[in-house]
Amino acid sequence: VAPTANAPSDKALVPFVSVAHMMALVHRLGAETVLAELATAIEADFRRWEDFDRTPRLPAHSPQGVIELMPTTDGVHYSFKYVNGHPRNTRAGLQTVAAFGLLAEVSTGYPVLLTEMTLLTALRTAAVSAVAARHLARPDARVHALIGNGAQAEFQALAIRALTGADRLRLFDTDPTATAKVQRNLAPLGFNLTTCTSAEEAATGADIVTTVTADKRNARVLAANAVAQGQHLNAVGGDCPGKTELPPELLPRCAIFVEHPPQTRVEGEIQSLPADHPVTELWRVIAGNAPGRRSPADVTLFDSVGFSIEDFSALVWLKGRITPDLCQPLDLIADPDDPRDLWGMLMRAGPEGGTT
Amino acid sequence: VAPTANAPSDKALVPFVSVAHMMALVHRLGAETVLAELATAIEADFRRWEDFDRTPRLPAHSPQGVIELMPTTDGVHYSFKYVNGHPRNTRAGLQTVAAFGLLAEVSTGYPVLLTEMTLLTALRTAAVSAVAARHLARPDARVHALIGNGAQAEFQALAIRALTGADRLRLFDTDPTATAKVQRNLAPLGFNLTTCTSAEEAATGADIVTTVTADKRNARVLAANAVAQGQHLNAVGGDCPGKTELPPELLPRCAIFVEHPPQTRVEGEIQSLPADHPVTELWRVIAGNAPGRRSPADVTLFDSVGFSIEDFSALVWLKGRITPDLCQPLDLIADPDDPRDLWGMLMRAGPEGGTT
Repeated sequence: VAPTANAPSDKALVPFVSVAHMMALVHRLGAETVLAELATAIEADFRRWEDFDRTPRLPAHSPQGVIELMPTTDGVHYSFKYVNGHPRNTRAGLQTVAAFGLLAEVSTGYPVLLTEMTLLTALRTAAVSAVAARHLARPDARVHALIGNGAQAEFQALAIRALTGADRLRLFDTDPTATAKVQRNLAPLGFNLTTCTSAEEAATGADIVTTVTADKRNARVLAANAVAQGQHLNAVGGDCPGKTELPPELLPRCAIFVEHPPQTRVEGEIQSLPADHPVTELWRVIAGNAPGRRSPADVTLFDSVGFSIEDFSALVWLKGRITPDLCQPLDLIADPDDPRDLWGMLMRAGPEGGTT
Repeated sequence: VAPTANAPSDKALVPFVSVAHMMALVHRLGAETVLAELATAIEADFRRWEDFDRTPRLPAHSPQGVIELMPTTDGVHYSFKYVNGHPRNTRAGLQTVAAFGLLAEVSTGYPVLLTEMTLLTALRTAAVSAVAARHLARPDARVHALIGNGAQAEFQALAIRALTGADRLRLFDTDPTATAKVQRNLAPLGFNLTTCTSAEEAATGADIVTTVTADKRNARVLAANAVAQGQHLNAVGGDCPGKTELPPELLPRCAIFVEHPPQTRVEGEIQSLPADHPVTELWRVIAGNAPGRRSPADVTLFDSVGFSIEDFSALVWLKGRITPDLCQPLDLIADPDDPRDLWGMLMRAGPEGGTT
């Protein structure tokens, strides 16, 4: 279609994936397929980790929370995510974490995708946990303890089952209504569900223990002596300075795996450890150049904080999955016929701004 | 209007100002009014400069150009701009600089405005030059030499006239078709226009000299001996490492004013000077706690590179100026009835993603 005089050209139009589009995409593909495809995309990018810019995320802290920008690039695509973390938001009926993201072409700097990322982050965070569990948990893992039954819980349960087969869930939250919500949501999906009255009870007999709580403080959501030999821990909720979930005395017992050590040492569970405490980068385990679990008795810990490369993987995956009915074109980039004539474009647009 | 079960609530909807909306706004208010209002907003924020986070912009460099994120906050609002700089883009019919931006509420981390910023950046960059010229040029300045007649040229001409009264324009570009374009665009607007065959000819007799060229290299767009006593220089085009416009030997003759010294020493004309060469922050002149021009014979230089606080000012100004017909609501933020029940929102949405 030839553009009319003042209508934006294709170069000016950026596909936008709204929350409604994202939900429709998940329904169309199925949540487990989405999680499995995201896990595959993330593993592929982790294998080429060193191709990526590993710029630290850029946080703006306030008494109420944090707003972060998380950019990265592989030299072909550039991505960033905008994400907040405001633990008290739920009291006002708002999300603790809301996010959106952008994918751009490095060669021109032009955006090629803008998308909601609240849902996409929930999906990719769960996919990353599941990738870690697939590589670090015992191969016979079947029982998954889920401590913290908030917005991430169902995503974690489904992703870990999709990648490891762990379909027996032990649930605990300090708020029983949160646990009831997870139970209600997951009951139709074929899980074997047990609700527990303490984190320690939930962890008992579990092969995989995921902690995903939201308080912004140094918490102890699980007693150190409740962690048994052979367990794999996903510590998902502790993800910024002053916000941890596990008792520090537990950490020296664990073989610790992280995304990007300079970031995790500041933001992760290991912020309480000396700066030279040994950790293994998860990507090296996936790429096959570092060992993961060394024995069935090891306690492995994936100290997850979330890294820009995971969002990059999710955005490139999404770009390949959207169809014209699952996005809307946004007139985001001014695109004059003559690039040097921005003023002329503005003047010729007239009082209606060139809209028709 | 009460939202239906799965329709996004107001909290989820972020007003989006498209390129067409921005053009309509400029037509509605008038470009000179917009430039003058932006100048007022920028001056007000410069007066409270120390209220702002002055985090450096975050660049991703590539052989073809740069993509940058420019965040800041005053503790109440948070803003960032995404902007690229790809000098070779014009060969492909694309903008050298395209941008969009976001304003958010610090207390919740929720976005409150998403907007095109290619046009808004052109407007705010010109407004900043004009603010500098108002404070640094001789009060009797009437003649403005404009070296570089690309996409920024008309904005600079109009903003500087709006704030200083300089209505006699002397134009030069290495490409005469660019100069012809500016002449064509500005002729109806009451300027007294002279086209020149060299930068030196353009600068002769000028009170204000603006250089706004786009080559990514250390250029010498104006011979040092063409700069006369009493002139005010706006060096707008040199804005990243390796990209300067003025001959280094000119700089020691100038009283130099900058936005944020740590950034300008890396990105501005002064990258060729020793790191301790004295410069004055423009905000201090505006706030009245540092002198500007000391005598009519001074050569003053505003070494403009663009700073996040200027985008913040522009975004807050825009937020106050948009009306329902000049934006569209974007379903950017997932907003479940129960914030802990993101999964339930996703499942209840059904295959159409909750759209109606």
